Amino acid sequence: MSDKLADMRFIRFLLYEVNKIEELLQYPYHEDHSRETFDMAIDAAYDVAHEVFWPAFQEMDREGVTFDGKNVAAPKAMREIWRQCKEGGWFAPNVCYDLGGQQFPLSIFAVTSFLFNVGNSSAAMYVSGAWGAAHLIESFGSEDLKARYLQPLYGGEWGGTMALTEPDAGTSLGDITTTAVKASEGDHYLIRGTKRFISSGDHDLADNIIHPVLARLEDAPPGVKGISLVVVPKRRVNPDGSLGEFNNVVTAGIEHKMGLRGQATATLMFGEQGECHGWLIGEPNKGLSYMFQLMNHARVFTGIQAVAGASAAYHCAAQYARERLQGREITNRDPLSPQIPIISHADVRRMLLQQKAFIEGALGMILFCAKVADRLQNTTDEEEKKNCNLLLETLTPC
Amino acid sequence: MSDKLADMRFIRFLLYEVNKIEELLQYPYHEDHSRETFDMAIDAAYDVAHEVFWPAFQEMDREGVTFDGKNVAAPKAMREIWRQCKEGGWFAPNVCYDLGGQQFPLSIFAVTSFLFNVGNSSAAMYVSGAWGAAHLIESFGSEDLKARYLQPLYGGEWGGTMALTEPDAGTSLGDITTTAVKASEGDHYLIRGTKRFISSGDHDLADNIIHPVLARLEDAPPGVKGISLVVVPKRRVNPDGSLGEFNNVVTAGIEHKMGLRGQATATLMFGEQGECHGWLIGEPNKGLSYMFQLMNHARVFTGIQAVAGASAAYHCAAQYARERLQGREITNRDPLSPQIPIISHADVRRMLLQQKAFIEGALGMILFCAKVADRLQNTTDEEEKKNCNLLLETLTPC
Repeated sequence: MSDKLADMRFIRFLLYEVNKIEELLQYPYHEDHSRETFDMAIDAAYDVAHEVFWPAFQEMDREGVTFDGKNVAAPKAMREIWRQCKEGGWFAPNVCYDLGGQQFPLSIFAVTSFLFNVGNSSAAMYVSGAWGAAHLIESFGSEDLKARYLQPLYGGEWGGTMALTEPDAGTSLGDITTTAVKASEGDHYLIRGTKRFISSGDHDLADNIIHPVLARLEDAPPGVKGISLVVVPKRRVNPDGSLGEFNNVVTAGIEHKMGLRGQATATLMFGEQGECHGWLIGEPNKGLSYMFQLMNHARVFTGIQAVAGASAAYHCAAQYARERLQGREITNRDPLSPQIPIISHADVRRMLLQQKAFIEGALGMILFCAKVADRLQNTTDEEEKKNCNLLLETLTPC
Repeated sequence: MSDKLADMRFIRFLLYEVNKIEELLQYPYHEDHSRETFDMAIDAAYDVAHEVFWPAFQEMDREGVTFDGKNVAAPKAMREIWRQCKEGGWFAPNVCYDLGGQQFPLSIFAVTSFLFNVGNSSAAMYVSGAWGAAHLIESFGSEDLKARYLQPLYGGEWGGTMALTEPDAGTSLGDITTTAVKASEGDHYLIRGTKRFISSGDHDLADNIIHPVLARLEDAPPGVKGISLVVVPKRRVNPDGSLGEFNNVVTAGIEHKMGLRGQATATLMFGEQGECHGWLIGEPNKGLSYMFQLMNHARVFTGIQAVAGASAAYHCAAQYARERLQGREITNRDPLSPQIPIISHADVRRMLLQQKAFIEGALGMILFCAKVADRLQNTTDEEEKKNCNLLLETLTPC
């Protein structure tokens, strides 16, 4: 790994000079902030990425995830990362003060997320999972669900996932077969089905794990028009928010993704070994449209993960190219003269510059989208809302 | 892995219709052959690749190479592959009858090598190492060296390597520091130095391992003009060809290359723990020019390894795309109709066709070069020799 985790000067250039994010300070939601608080946040995130996330990367990758057939243990080093993120408020720096957040713009959240992914993508995914689940509940859930689920998720008490994919329904979500049947008593549904490739699907880092699950209600129309969104906790949540009994979300196995050995990507069985309760988010059969309303946003964060990997690779390559001595200037015919760093060779520079150009371009695109998402979220002008939405849908297509 | 290891119909199309390799039958060296013997060879190689190389691929990758600080053990499954290749004459199907070969054209050797690499690249490298070392000795070595080394190397009794790279001299071979000092008695040199990233550098598959080593003689001019080629056996070879004592070629460690965990890529120390004897190949200070005369050829075989990996990936992807059901024709709005194989989706087809085009183009280029190399090797026409050489140097640049 490079001593330098990311190019903070370039990130500041994008934030303040290209995207002029200080414009966001005009909105009431961000009025307590300033360029100074933004800088403090991203500098602190750099330190956490550099001193907490990154040093655990190799160890987590070597150790991997442990599954004894029943319980899943995240790599040991992940406990300290989770603890530090909880303490530092890194689970949801953008949410409102009432929910324990700091009301930062998404533009800043995108940078902190980028830095954590640069340091350790497997680890960053555990942290971002909770935010994603909570954001769905906050956007579309009932007041009761919000009251019980948001604070623990945004605060890092609980973990979260997105349980969409099934063994025979990945891109074709209209074909999911997981069912949610209204219980004869109570406000819950009985969930049955199997979900695959669920990131942070099971682990021992938090007291509970919350799964937003795509499922079909009884008599739902076929295809994408019959998909509902239910929230399914690993352990049930009592009306007062305390934890109840095990909810029969059972891990069938851990999946292996290249480069993400520290990440507990799981196959989960819902309700195969006992009653599994779920609570409807929003209205029946609108699950997919809820998911897609968040997709513009989710795509930006998926993009962040990709650019973060490329950026880490670039900084490693650049450092190596500055240190590795090999060959001489092409005009130097003296074989006894000292060798030069390979970054002096034109073709090595060309390759490094190509990496740099891709990364800076992609990061520029991502932070531009984040700024548009910030405007969309804050503006009260309907025309601007419409334009921001159109722009985001154009820049982050399916 | 795909049931189909490679597209033999396309390979035959390249050999017989595009490259018209039956033209090679006009040369005395290949006069015993025919399209039938060519077909028998490549079909037999397909079977060996499919039934011997490929089934051991995952196991070898999982087991990896064992190094106890002194001895290196290749993955267990490699023993049977080595035995079968020895029995089948796959170490050197192109060499002359007198040396145990079958006088096949390089065009056929390129295909058999391609197929073995498709099945298991780590394994194929053990087998091809012996051929490379022997080919250097055959091309530039003394009659005495040829008499003692060629038959065991071409026959798979011994393994072979190419020991060029040093920790501080990879691409810049002019900077190697390994020395070869004429012994006060005898015809040998005393070798000292360290070589890195030596493929098949040490293992327990053969009675001896032969290292062609780039080294500097005393008073050699600096840079590329002062590099000599010496042959350094792991165990010394007596005048009658029987094995003598250990020659102090000591393994310092095994390197790890992604995708080649079954391959014993080694760091070797020559003469650090006792006298290490080497014998000069050809004239002093001509080592690099000998190496480069073989480079046109070596590059074709390096290309084969790359295309083989791409081809294996393509056939796996194509098979998966035919089996995996997901989604429906874009014009089909009935969510209850059965899902279709993803190969029916235009963008999946586009990706598969792009893979196929790259592979077929690259394999076409490689087999074209092999045919030119065959002509170069066989023709007695000086003009054709010159043209073939020029063409090869153009198509396989540094």
